Amino acid sequence: MTEDTENNAQIDPLEKPRNLKMIVEYDGTEYSGWQTQEDKTGGPTLQQVLERCLSRLAVKNVRINCAGRTDAGVHALGQVFNVIAAFRYDNNRLLHSLNSMLPRDIAIKSIEEMENGFHPRRDALWKRYRYQIYTNPVPSPHLARTSWWMPVSMDVALMNEAAKKIVGEHNFRSFMARGSTAKSFVRSVISCNLSRSENGMITLEIVGEGFLKYMVRIIAGTLVEVGRGRFRVEDMEKIIEARDRRKAGPTAPPRGLFLVEVGYRPFGETQS
Amino acid sequence: MTEDTENNAQIDPLEKPRNLKMIVEYDGTEYSGWQTQEDKTGGPTLQQVLERCLSRLAVKNVRINCAGRTDAGVHALGQVFNVIAAFRYDNNRLLHSLNSMLPRDIAIKSIEEMENGFHPRRDALWKRYRYQIYTNPVPSPHLARTSWWMPVSMDVALMNEAAKKIVGEHNFRSFMARGSTAKSFVRSVISCNLSRSENGMITLEIVGEGFLKYMVRIIAGTLVEVGRGRFRVEDMEKIIEARDRRKAGPTAPPRGLFLVEVGYRPFGETQS
Repeated sequence: MTEDTENNAQIDPLEKPRNLKMIVEYDGTEYSGWQTQEDKTGGPTLQQVLERCLSRLAVKNVRINCAGRTDAGVHALGQVFNVIAAFRYDNNRLLHSLNSMLPRDIAIKSIEEMENGFHPRRDALWKRYRYQIYTNPVPSPHLARTSWWMPVSMDVALMNEAAKKIVGEHNFRSFMARGSTAKSFVRSVISCNLSRSENGMITLEIVGEGFLKYMVRIIAGTLVEVGRGRFRVEDMEKIIEARDRRKAGPTAPPRGLFLVEVGYRPFGETQS
Repeated sequence: MTEDTENNAQIDPLEKPRNLKMIVEYDGTEYSGWQTQEDKTGGPTLQQVLERCLSRLAVKNVRINCAGRTDAGVHALGQVFNVIAAFRYDNNRLLHSLNSMLPRDIAIKSIEEMENGFHPRRDALWKRYRYQIYTNPVPSPHLARTSWWMPVSMDVALMNEAAKKIVGEHNFRSFMARGSTAKSFVRSVISCNLSRSENGMITLEIVGEGFLKYMVRIIAGTLVEVGRGRFRVEDMEKIIEARDRRKAGPTAPPRGLFLVEVGYRPFGETQS
């Protein structure tokens, strides 16, 4: 037995670096968004908190990459990130250890080992976002962290008609935060629907191949203007054509927004 | 016209003291409970925050009385309190003004003018509480503030059998916080049921004429012990008969508990 073989034999298979895809849910209220930025003061970021917990369980300090960076105050039901690292635990034990260390507003839902090349953002084919608008005249404290309270009557049928106008491939510059550094403003929206539940919550569900900065929140703010009669359905086409942020409605607040799901198979196919 | 008559004529009818019954919803996570206690340090209380906002809209500083004081971290969907004061606003404008001043985790749901003698605690005939237990193996950040995460499998049918044993008039000393100063330990439970929803949430609903300190939380903790097989259904009767706190299960944490409704008509009759 050569020295090399001997050394290899002593390496625990769990100490080999793995490329792990993790699905994470979070209440983003207390966080300055996903991404850690050097120049940023303010509260902790989701990336910071997750990297700190993961590093305690990994052989070396780790860095993580997510599918879509959420802004400050935005939530996730199914954000995806990956970490390439050696952990001494198998995936099941790693999941439960992480959840016992993480604060209660962050939880890992699943861990899956991927091939070496997997990258959560580059490999994502679509993302599903949800935006919640609470329309009751009286606010609800138990919905306050996760919805925009807009106590006005809205016509959801009109909002759905307007929502159809944004489905497809368009230049969405009118629906992008000013000052964003995107190189192309063309994005493809796969579906966009609104529904109202009995308790007065209007829920917008939007699936797209990619989104510009604040795009879902500006779409939500614009559809609210349609619902309350300040914009007409026909205005949507003019707003898209204008390629001018000032033509669209206000940016809806972050607290109503959820990143629900990231797709790695064509939309409509069952996820593995 | 005498001077007295003249003065009376100048008094705005809204400046006459009214006895107002208010229904309030709150997320109790950030509060040291309902009641302001002189000797207590720690976070603000619900009573403090509500009295401060009400006093800004009333002619004089006000004090409020609630139907059932909730402990630190406990929530309400339908807590009731009253305030006797003169306000320059009618009830509808008062409701909206209060909600614009209150933090997002507290909201007034309704305001109703009552006869002079109305007292929210003395006149209450029953209270409905809810306790939420989340049993999924993986925690959920969006349920973390309002449920007890207990990732064990539980037999809800057995829990319901055990719950039946506490319905009726009993000495509930076994289900009371030690050190409580209650004079009588006899309380009457009108109904107690559990159900499990598809997402793994077990919900306990309990209606009673009155409750001892921590009674609902100790009942929840005891029923969890039945559900996971540590107590048998028959143990419930022995626990009640023992009149000894040590015989019952643990006190479930406050975050799963809601004061749902306070009844001012006999249970089963439609509330006015």
